[in-house]
Amino acid sequence: MAEEVKVFGVWGSPFSRRVEIALKMKGVKYEFIEEDLANKSPLLLKYNPVHKKIPVLLHNGKPICESLVILEYIDETWKGTSIFPQDPYKRAVARFWARFIDDKCLPTLWKTCWSQGEEQEKGKEEACELLKILDNELKDKKFFGGDAIGPVDIVANFIGFWLGIIQEITGVEVLTKEKFPKLCQWIDEFINYSIIKENLPPRDKLKAYFQTRLPNK
Amino acid sequence: MAEEVKVFGVWGSPFSRRVEIALKMKGVKYEFIEEDLANKSPLLLKYNPVHKKIPVLLHNGKPICESLVILEYIDETWKGTSIFPQDPYKRAVARFWARFIDDKCLPTLWKTCWSQGEEQEKGKEEACELLKILDNELKDKKFFGGDAIGPVDIVANFIGFWLGIIQEITGVEVLTKEKFPKLCQWIDEFINYSIIKENLPPRDKLKAYFQTRLPNK
Repeated sequence: MAEEVKVFGVWGSPFSRRVEIALKMKGVKYEFIEEDLANKSPLLLKYNPVHKKIPVLLHNGKPICESLVILEYIDETWKGTSIFPQDPYKRAVARFWARFIDDKCLPTLWKTCWSQGEEQEKGKEEACELLKILDNELKDKKFFGGDAIGPVDIVANFIGFWLGIIQEITGVEVLTKEKFPKLCQWIDEFINYSIIKENLPPRDKLKAYFQTRLPNK
Repeated sequence: MAEEVKVFGVWGSPFSRRVEIALKMKGVKYEFIEEDLANKSPLLLKYNPVHKKIPVLLHNGKPICESLVILEYIDETWKGTSIFPQDPYKRAVARFWARFIDDKCLPTLWKTCWSQGEEQEKGKEEACELLKILDNELKDKKFFGGDAIGPVDIVANFIGFWLGIIQEITGVEVLTKEKFPKLCQWIDEFINYSIIKENLPPRDKLKAYFQTRLPNK
């Protein structure tokens, strides 16, 4: 009997792209169901009644919610390329950084890019401190986990791809080559890594989408 | 060679108690190092330079930070009683609820109990919605994971023990038997479960501590 694997997501969301990247790494075939966040489907509300958010992974009728939880589930459920390191300490370190990105970096970066005036200035300072920590963590590694893409890289996809586009559109500069050379080097490696490259949203389409979010000038 | 296992924590913190409970479940001997949060030790700042927070688990010279990350590390490192379920789907569900408690319930409950007036009223409404979700999740189970204590119960320790004391002191009533019968039943089971009972802070001492936090009346 064929396995049922469905992803409820949004084409331009870094969170549902994480899930797709993980499934592709494992070579798992899935059906992608595009959600309209302004008019969420009854299925999305049924499968994620608590947060009512994408992404949701549906596996043989069972829903899994929250992208970090889904990444671990995918890694533990399907064989093939490991996503998380096998060593418990390295796995703990990966979980730590994934949470740091989700809980600290992303909210600050997002808010800063779309804010103005004093709020933006304050946000930039905070964002720089956080990015500095990430930049240092990369040390001389190609990826956060070493030579290959790992969970932290996948979770940092917003920084690797989305952030540059948003900076371009809003004119807010937080992440620059001058300030964060290692992080920018990582971005180059990241977006050119085959499995990532093939699973990023179309740049022009994403740019056009974010342009509609700009306040009238 | 003897293993080095140290916990940097605070006696009255539900977060460091989580780590202690997990170590006790595994039968791991450890040294507890009491931190003064008003004057953090150089070792704490060295081992958790990003968040500068307790708890930190030090295992043979390697620091692990963030209580949920530590719980998984303990479970994966030491044999004995499993803390997380073995089945990947059940494990995903446990991770989901642990995060729900940490990200949603705890900040709202804490803020509500220590706020006043309109802020408190708004907080109470939010807190009730969140507790309702938890109450429903318990269904007819003794513990969140079933018949035995699991990671969600450990993470919910604030609700199981701390919340009642804080409610008593501040007079703010959020969690009541009338509104949340299953959750209150769970609290009874939780605080009387031997490994939990033996690892809770002294009630009177905790009460006295929280009393010092009350605004002057």
